[in-house]
Amino acid sequence: MTAIPDLAAIEAMDANDPLRAMRDRFVLPEGVIYLDGNSLGAASKSVFAELDRAAREEWGQDLIRAWNKDGWFDMPLELGDRIGRLIGAAPGQTVVADTTSINIYKALHAAMGLRPDRSVIVAEGNSFPTDLYMAEGVASTRPGTVLRLEGVDSDHIDDLIDDQVAVVLVNHVNYKSGELRDMAALTRRCHEAGAVVVWDLCHTAGALPVDLDGASADFAVGCSYKYLNGGPGAPAFIYVAERHLADARQPLSGWWGHARPFAFEQGFDASAGIRRFQCGTQPILSLRALKGALDIWDEVDMQALRAKSIALTNLFIQLVEARCAGFGLTLGSPRDSTRRGSQVSFSHEHAYPIMQALIERGVIGDFRAPETIRFGFTPLYTSFGDVWQAVGILEDIMRSGAWQAPRFAVRAAVT
Amino acid sequence: MTAIPDLAAIEAMDANDPLRAMRDRFVLPEGVIYLDGNSLGAASKSVFAELDRAAREEWGQDLIRAWNKDGWFDMPLELGDRIGRLIGAAPGQTVVADTTSINIYKALHAAMGLRPDRSVIVAEGNSFPTDLYMAEGVASTRPGTVLRLEGVDSDHIDDLIDDQVAVVLVNHVNYKSGELRDMAALTRRCHEAGAVVVWDLCHTAGALPVDLDGASADFAVGCSYKYLNGGPGAPAFIYVAERHLADARQPLSGWWGHARPFAFEQGFDASAGIRRFQCGTQPILSLRALKGALDIWDEVDMQALRAKSIALTNLFIQLVEARCAGFGLTLGSPRDSTRRGSQVSFSHEHAYPIMQALIERGVIGDFRAPETIRFGFTPLYTSFGDVWQAVGILEDIMRSGAWQAPRFAVRAAVT
Repeated sequence: MTAIPDLAAIEAMDANDPLRAMRDRFVLPEGVIYLDGNSLGAASKSVFAELDRAAREEWGQDLIRAWNKDGWFDMPLELGDRIGRLIGAAPGQTVVADTTSINIYKALHAAMGLRPDRSVIVAEGNSFPTDLYMAEGVASTRPGTVLRLEGVDSDHIDDLIDDQVAVVLVNHVNYKSGELRDMAALTRRCHEAGAVVVWDLCHTAGALPVDLDGASADFAVGCSYKYLNGGPGAPAFIYVAERHLADARQPLSGWWGHARPFAFEQGFDASAGIRRFQCGTQPILSLRALKGALDIWDEVDMQALRAKSIALTNLFIQLVEARCAGFGLTLGSPRDSTRRGSQVSFSHEHAYPIMQALIERGVIGDFRAPETIRFGFTPLYTSFGDVWQAVGILEDIMRSGAWQAPRFAVRAAVT
Repeated sequence: MTAIPDLAAIEAMDANDPLRAMRDRFVLPEGVIYLDGNSLGAASKSVFAELDRAAREEWGQDLIRAWNKDGWFDMPLELGDRIGRLIGAAPGQTVVADTTSINIYKALHAAMGLRPDRSVIVAEGNSFPTDLYMAEGVASTRPGTVLRLEGVDSDHIDDLIDDQVAVVLVNHVNYKSGELRDMAALTRRCHEAGAVVVWDLCHTAGALPVDLDGASADFAVGCSYKYLNGGPGAPAFIYVAERHLADARQPLSGWWGHARPFAFEQGFDASAGIRRFQCGTQPILSLRALKGALDIWDEVDMQALRAKSIALTNLFIQLVEARCAGFGLTLGSPRDSTRRGSQVSFSHEHAYPIMQALIERGVIGDFRAPETIRFGFTPLYTSFGDVWQAVGILEDIMRSGAWQAPRFAVRAAVT
């Protein structure tokens, strides 16, 4: 292990950070060290101007004419392509629409439709649960579908992929541990077995460079309100590789996916392109906040982002293990930074009150049942000084036993 | 026919309008007579304050904590109940979520699940098309499902309802003609045949009083961005009668519909209540605009709304038929106001350029292919003076032949 940095070294890291100017583009509350951008990204100042324009000028003054005049109707495609740049998707393959859960449903149905003789969906037992719930939902509409889970039916996903498997639904970065999968290798493995793969990029998009086209991925879905900073509940995205677009069908066949939505025809005729993965009218105001957030991303070099992300997470692990040693915190994320996303988890049997004590002191991460404290590092607005201060506060809470105060033990209904 | 009112009579109507104070609560652009609130309702001033607070204070300052602190997580249920009051739904049966198309998918699946021995969906050939497209989508996931269409398989929907029918999907008010169905009678007819009914309230909610509970309706879906003025693409709603909530299942089984969404369990266990018709994270900023819009509705007497709506539409029909007689405009809506929603359509073989000429003169209605011009009357902000002026401009366009100018003949991609 290298020497533990001191405050002077931390200040030098911030001074030399090529992304440091980005922080000023965001609204960050006073007295808060925000390490939860992997749940809800912070607001960039540019979103407020977009929201004001969309609400007051466009909706207020242009009214229905705004669908054409202000580009509302094509915004899901425009924003999809802009996210596409960040995930290695050439234009025309990504659209912003609906929620991640709903896009998983679309992708799984489409994927299974491409492999009509197969009936198995492979997923991860430790997946973010909605992926599994949506796979159950798809299975309920496709009698005979079997769900095979890594961690349940076998410890290794590779062992579950055989010639019965239609589709593998897998998280690029695990929501809890931050473990990063090798996209190219697993995609290759799926293709060798004749299966298609759906990548869940919720904890990837905006966190690190992704190369969907380069990996020959088939489908991907993801979230825009975490690292992309699109705003609470901002619509999700779905990617479909161009080679599948002609044949991929999904049953949420609403009018926005029709080849001629304004011809008001009786029968459904899917649009030729990625539009067929749209369904109904999208929430324009929420989309506009996302549009404002993406303005910043147009300037971001993804390699620089990844380098800073690794430096931040490495520093956090190093400082916690040095300064909180002996307090029962166990690293729950891969130590190897090439196998880790932009978050770090520690487990502790009293994870819940520890996180509550941190939040009271202004360090916002989150708790994931039963015993994980999780910290997200968002290179656009997290500084090395934030990491230093957060670990100082964690150390203080562990040394003092402050987390044992009774007020921290009461679980809120929503966490 | 009663005597044609003159301007003095129109001014008296406005002076005596019990809803006239509502108009000042809305933003209405100068020089525009907006008769398209049935496509996109106007912005009420209260939405801007809600949006500002949600974006700048809650997202900006509270960040992830806002999900609890600012009530984001339960907002879909809170807003659902507030819409419930306008559609005759007691609390706990309505939730705001996703899009109308997606809610149709949920409702049809749930309805068919309640009638597992039946395989027919009845719908209307002249429905807003997305209803039919979603029924096709449901049928694609339920082999053996048959779609029977009014206007195709029989001219009368009653003749299509027999003991093979699982569900009848029907619009309360037709999007094009404005024809209003008798909800109680058709619901009774469906129940006598052992079928369940899904009411599409897109052109009803906020346009006239609805009594879902009183009619013993089973399911309903609807839009919040038309008469409810929730903002462009604001999330839709779904109603499920309490008696069905325990048994109704839908395959978009995302984590927001789980009984314990934050326990992160591997298997799906549907929530006991209307929450099971939720799927994924909702667009909070768009929901907040809707919340601001609903503040006004809490003060509205729905009987007064209906009385004004009928007076507005009666006046429009009377004035157009009197002042534009001989120009080939044919009433496309029911003349009987008890069978009409809050809109009026006329057909004309040159409907498209006529509407373009109207829009250029500031009268905004819309065109529906192939030959309908459609005008929505939103009692909260449309005045009798608006009707008078709009008809005056229409008369001028028809008399002068102004609509024949070549610039009006070019169809935009999106209308």
